[in-house]
Amino acid sequence: MKISVKVPATTANIGPGFDCLGMALPIYNTITIEETVLPGTGIEINVLNDDATADELMLEHIPMDENSIIYKAVELLYNSIGQTPSELKITVQGQIPIARGLGSSAAVIVGGLLAANELLGHPADEVALLSIATEVEGHPDNVTPAIVGGLVLTSQEDDGRIVYTKLDWPDEWNITVCIPDYELSTEISRSVLPKEVPMQDAVFNAKRLGMFVQAVNTKDAELMKLALHDKLHQPYRMKLVPGLDKIIENLRHEENVLGCVLSGAGPSILVISQKNNLDKIKAIVKNTWEEMNVKVNMMTLPVANEGAIIINNENQI
Amino acid sequence: MKISVKVPATTANIGPGFDCLGMALPIYNTITIEETVLPGTGIEINVLNDDATADELMLEHIPMDENSIIYKAVELLYNSIGQTPSELKITVQGQIPIARGLGSSAAVIVGGLLAANELLGHPADEVALLSIATEVEGHPDNVTPAIVGGLVLTSQEDDGRIVYTKLDWPDEWNITVCIPDYELSTEISRSVLPKEVPMQDAVFNAKRLGMFVQAVNTKDAELMKLALHDKLHQPYRMKLVPGLDKIIENLRHEENVLGCVLSGAGPSILVISQKNNLDKIKAIVKNTWEEMNVKVNMMTLPVANEGAIIINNENQI
Repeated sequence: MKISVKVPATTANIGPGFDCLGMALPIYNTITIEETVLPGTGIEINVLNDDATADELMLEHIPMDENSIIYKAVELLYNSIGQTPSELKITVQGQIPIARGLGSSAAVIVGGLLAANELLGHPADEVALLSIATEVEGHPDNVTPAIVGGLVLTSQEDDGRIVYTKLDWPDEWNITVCIPDYELSTEISRSVLPKEVPMQDAVFNAKRLGMFVQAVNTKDAELMKLALHDKLHQPYRMKLVPGLDKIIENLRHEENVLGCVLSGAGPSILVISQKNNLDKIKAIVKNTWEEMNVKVNMMTLPVANEGAIIINNENQI
Repeated sequence: MKISVKVPATTANIGPGFDCLGMALPIYNTITIEETVLPGTGIEINVLNDDATADELMLEHIPMDENSIIYKAVELLYNSIGQTPSELKITVQGQIPIARGLGSSAAVIVGGLLAANELLGHPADEVALLSIATEVEGHPDNVTPAIVGGLVLTSQEDDGRIVYTKLDWPDEWNITVCIPDYELSTEISRSVLPKEVPMQDAVFNAKRLGMFVQAVNTKDAELMKLALHDKLHQPYRMKLVPGLDKIIENLRHEENVLGCVLSGAGPSILVISQKNNLDKIKAIVKNTWEEMNVKVNMMTLPVANEGAIIINNENQI
């Protein structure tokens, strides 16, 4: 039995939505799990880069062994039905760049989980899958859109349950993902965040998240411009993402730009804009980073409305 | 010249919206400004209670002199056009209970301001009125709905400008205002709030405010149940509002109750519920407070979609 799952990249935070807003983007990893024929061969995890796009996306090797996040996800699912995984060949074929704030870890967790769930005959429903994926990833804002697709507001409740609500991103707002050629680990990017924040910053972000949701619902570009600000994570991470402050400054008065925000924990950034003027916006980002000797790969993408899907379920016994 | 303005009561915060959500309610104060005939009589401020409702609403006298908030508001408006107010008789006729978290101070500020603006021939537009009213009140979440009506998400931006967006409260959700017979000054209620809060509480409230806006837009009662929680002000104010914790607990599993929150800085509380079951909900609130020797006045009210209006503009020269 061999099962493949195609999982979208995800961008989280998106301005005011630290640890709760996430969006699926049409860049994909494919995770394949195959039950191996010979007993005693154990778990084998391989990474195959798609060479054609790997270079463009600056993809590097994913370090993977049985301790990896993908194994943890698969193991938790097996354990949830009283089993232990064995004799599995797991392959990750990836287009999602690593350590760039585009949900590459969420994608492999979700891919492994969904493939294993298919292999085991669907013991886990969506609620259980969200819960296991969040346990491995640590927060639900990437794994939720990776599973359910679209733009989601998501939360882990006190009882551990993951709840989410889908929001309808206006088609007329462009999302330009700008990926610099340097990495930033989520671990380092999390370590600079304080445990306590000023009350006024908490109120600031709550207001912005309310504005964000209302702006998306009413397609109100002026409101979105107000909404796409953050005081809970971006100010602390600014120094870890060289160029971000200058790019924000250089885009500030640019026509049609609604906002410029970190993607997840960075270092990729998202430029949200209304149609038109895209070439100029991209040139500003490119030139700003080039002056600092940073190369950048940019893609203007729609929201991926579908989450992870099984693309191959092949009996190979 | 004599001008009267009718201004609605307002409830602020409404769960997760500390210092940014506010809603106008159809309980009114009427503020009248009259230019007196004799020069040298100065500013006179009077308060007339509407006896018929004053008792019911436990209205008490508003302490007012030239230093009062209403005078400050009128003075700021006059100053903004290079004048100083003089020879004015200001009358406040009130149905909005004082120091109960229902925006009585916002109502007199807004009433004085709008009456003076009418008297002076509209030197201030809405933006200027919101700005002056916020300067006197300290925060925009009561004065904004008092001026513009409805349910609003409001914010004072870094440049001082007040921005707001209106939200459409579903008709099928009841708002029951429960007013206990004890006062709580906003000053005391603000003094117990910390200057810093845990990051996770900031994220908690931001998520809830996003859920609140989405729930209102989609009329999603289950989402609203999740949204109507707060960690930024209610936990700190709980001890200042005897009975609130028990009322929340006693309503927790009650059918149709979406949430139970402080109105503004308290001590009034709002019970948000779906239609039906209202008598039982009110009985629970009444009995819980009665056991603590607290009398309560309860009103189930719609949102007041209109803000302050000029009701009388009479030439009396």
